[in-house]
Amino acid sequence: MAARTGDQRALARLVSLVEDSSPDLRRVMKVIAPLSGHAHVLGLTGSPGVGKSTVTAALVRRYRDEGLHVGVLAVDPSSPFSGGALLGDRIRMQDHATDEHVFIRSMASRGHLGGLSWATPQALRILDAAGFDVVLIETVGVGQAEVEIASLADTTLVVVAPGLGDSVQAAKAGILEIADIFVVNKSDRPGAHDVVRDIRNMLALANYASSDWKPPIISTTAPTNDGVSDLTAAIDKHRTWLASEGQLTKRRQARARDEISAIALTELRHRMGGLPGESRLDELAARVEAGLLDPYTAADELISG
Amino acid sequence: MAARTGDQRALARLVSLVEDSSPDLRRVMKVIAPLSGHAHVLGLTGSPGVGKSTVTAALVRRYRDEGLHVGVLAVDPSSPFSGGALLGDRIRMQDHATDEHVFIRSMASRGHLGGLSWATPQALRILDAAGFDVVLIETVGVGQAEVEIASLADTTLVVVAPGLGDSVQAAKAGILEIADIFVVNKSDRPGAHDVVRDIRNMLALANYASSDWKPPIISTTAPTNDGVSDLTAAIDKHRTWLASEGQLTKRRQARARDEISAIALTELRHRMGGLPGESRLDELAARVEAGLLDPYTAADELISG
Repeated sequence: MAARTGDQRALARLVSLVEDSSPDLRRVMKVIAPLSGHAHVLGLTGSPGVGKSTVTAALVRRYRDEGLHVGVLAVDPSSPFSGGALLGDRIRMQDHATDEHVFIRSMASRGHLGGLSWATPQALRILDAAGFDVVLIETVGVGQAEVEIASLADTTLVVVAPGLGDSVQAAKAGILEIADIFVVNKSDRPGAHDVVRDIRNMLALANYASSDWKPPIISTTAPTNDGVSDLTAAIDKHRTWLASEGQLTKRRQARARDEISAIALTELRHRMGGLPGESRLDELAARVEAGLLDPYTAADELISG
Repeated sequence: MAARTGDQRALARLVSLVEDSSPDLRRVMKVIAPLSGHAHVLGLTGSPGVGKSTVTAALVRRYRDEGLHVGVLAVDPSSPFSGGALLGDRIRMQDHATDEHVFIRSMASRGHLGGLSWATPQALRILDAAGFDVVLIETVGVGQAEVEIASLADTTLVVVAPGLGDSVQAAKAGILEIADIFVVNKSDRPGAHDVVRDIRNMLALANYASSDWKPPIISTTAPTNDGVSDLTAAIDKHRTWLASEGQLTKRRQARARDEISAIALTELRHRMGGLPGESRLDELAARVEAGLLDPYTAADELISG
């Protein structure tokens, strides 16, 4: 493959193939298939305001200090409207503008049938094949995107921070199940100990078997790098656990299953676009809106033409 | 239809048909098609911690005082893991346990092919047909779920609050495009004026035509009902604008289009489940994971068997 980690422009072109749903993508994926599986994939997620970007930046600095090549995909699930994520761009400005072994890309999900579940794994596949040691996928929100990122990642970091009033709410929303590591960022702020305690209490209620991974809680102050070496140590430990328990292959096979299904679904939907009923969608919608037709019957007419 | 707004148990059973993807749903939808289009659909969204539940509760109280029948669908996009939303339940406990003209239901998207885009519109359709005057759909997060809720609603309320450090970030994530009304909740707290100013500045940068709706900014302190009458007045004003500009029919036709497509896609996916390749998905995933196959070729094999 022409694009190795140092070739920013070739990489950017390849990732654009994904964003543009280019027909060339098939050929590229065929060529790079044997090159996959090297990168450790980190998912990083959390509510707005917890400092995801600064944690990402601190991790990138740390890994670069160790001589590793780092890719970052900043995924903005709401980009159908806003036209692109800004998190990754901010990091690029600050530190790594001239570092050819850091590749940062904002991924927009707009316009893609299947959204993130379609585009992100393929961009990830390209960075992996290009030889990045670590690929970090960062996303905002406590929602479907987060769940999808967790299913893509080898190791999922859930970032929380004191003073947002949401640690308990976020816990309810299912982060316990997706977090491999909890990062309590802004740990120099009042209330950080309370957040750590809340998470610890929550974890104490979970039933872990002795072979299960128990998510550690790492306190960080990302701008000053406090706690960042603890965080990378926890990530290493998780990676070792994944490998020793056969979990890594299991997770990655599940990821491949999702990816294949998403592509197949996109293909099916594409075919649906060619069905005779598609041109009648506006008319069918108008009849449903007017109460003249139910949506199931309309869907039948859409499929059968 | 047997279930009118006062019959909680009949309604609950009908909504369960949606959650269970029951085959009876087709028949129900056919019967209720002519009854649709009465309810005003409010979407309510915002980050964790802004007080969405208390705003919802305040709106329910207010509408009940006016004698209106109110349905609430609390949608939790992360429920594939957590097993259900808790927002609606909390409200139910507090105020309306014995009020038969308030129907509150937590919607989980787990297990549904197509997730929220499939189940929520159908539950909405049932409440609409049952004669509710207002149906309020509440969801957490700044993500895909939020965008989907906005596409379902006649009027979308974006709730923000001071002290979360996310007003600007949230703005970047596209809320400007989905908000019909901004609600600055917890307006008695320090920083509330700054939040109002930030949103006002953001709106000033947008290019509105004279016929466009310009989102008002309403300050509320939901637990004490401060600002809640301003909020319902703004909602009424938006509804009048929707009707006079022909926007309501346009929005609802777009909603019906999405709904029909989602059902058709689910149906296609269902058919995919019956394809000969489906039983080979695990094997195909293992080969992709091992780098022996690319995901496109795997998807082709999945479709063609």
